[in-house]
Amino acid sequence: MNRLDQQIEFIKEIDKLKEVYRRSYLLSQTRKENSAEHSWHIALMAMLLSEYSNTEVNSHRVIEMLLVHDIIEIDAGDTYCYDETGYMDKDRREKQAADRIFNILPKEQAERLINLWREFEAAETPESKFANSVDRLMPLIHNFNTSGRSWKEHGITKKQVVGRTKKIAEGSETLWKYAEQSILKAVEEGVLKDDL
Amino acid sequence: MNRLDQQIEFIKEIDKLKEVYRRSYLLSQTRKENSAEHSWHIALMAMLLSEYSNTEVNSHRVIEMLLVHDIIEIDAGDTYCYDETGYMDKDRREKQAADRIFNILPKEQAERLINLWREFEAAETPESKFANSVDRLMPLIHNFNTSGRSWKEHGITKKQVVGRTKKIAEGSETLWKYAEQSILKAVEEGVLKDDL
Repeated sequence: MNRLDQQIEFIKEIDKLKEVYRRSYLLSQTRKENSAEHSWHIALMAMLLSEYSNTEVNSHRVIEMLLVHDIIEIDAGDTYCYDETGYMDKDRREKQAADRIFNILPKEQAERLINLWREFEAAETPESKFANSVDRLMPLIHNFNTSGRSWKEHGITKKQVVGRTKKIAEGSETLWKYAEQSILKAVEEGVLKDDL
Repeated sequence: MNRLDQQIEFIKEIDKLKEVYRRSYLLSQTRKENSAEHSWHIALMAMLLSEYSNTEVNSHRVIEMLLVHDIIEIDAGDTYCYDETGYMDKDRREKQAADRIFNILPKEQAERLINLWREFEAAETPESKFANSVDRLMPLIHNFNTSGRSWKEHGITKKQVVGRTKKIAEGSETLWKYAEQSILKAVEEGVLKDDL
């Protein structure tokens, strides 16, 4: 297969991400969100909110990372962030998925995308810390604005939400402050169960 | 409203793009594609295919443009590229949409996104020419791989497809060559009606 054919094969393969559904509902609540449209949404979010990153970031790399970060879900599925059993073998499942899917591409592009995905997962660089902040903030915004629908469906409590989202602070203190205030408000309004 | 609240309002508003449906089917053919997931798909495509641009492009600007280019459809709807009546007032509808939606953002961010959208529409810079090439190539890939399903549903012919997609060459001769060969193959296989 020539280079362009390999690239087109990959582009066709990732069409499947449009059918990986997350736990979050659209704000209209007509259906759950899929991982492809979610990736678009947070890439744009990162583009607009990068001024709040704790350290200056290369916005281009943040956006590329976010466009790529969920592709492994085509094979590995979306592991719900509060699913402790699912998290036990998440790494293994996702590594296998990355190997298969990214290697459809020509070698150096496969490596580039695998590295972006690994950087996101490790969350050690300023760019990946900020990318993770945005990725964790988005489901909060969906829950705040749908009366906590997916939280309620899965019996999620304040302790779990804070445990999951306090890492937002590592990428952005400002966005964490916003998240924290919104979580307190959700508890006050009875949208999120208080167990802390 | 403070700056962050304005930005979050915009991020909430654009959730609606996930419910603007296009004419193209997913490759699995289970449903039509929406404009949010389409934007994700072509942003990634641009990231992988920029080597084929006729002139060197700033990949970051191409990707930002593609993330933003369909947002106006929240108000203006997706105008089918072969809908001549729809195209008559497309500009007016889209300008009004841009005014309302982008201006939810703080002023300088609204201007930045409006400029990206205008640049895409004008298709005069190397970046916007290449972004348009990718945007026009994607529905071809969807049609080639679903036995021309949306072409058939709308009675689209080779003449219309070539008329719409030959502009791919302005951004990328290589991608146009690929498109042209695939169109010829689609005609040969009886997937696309030959009227040229």
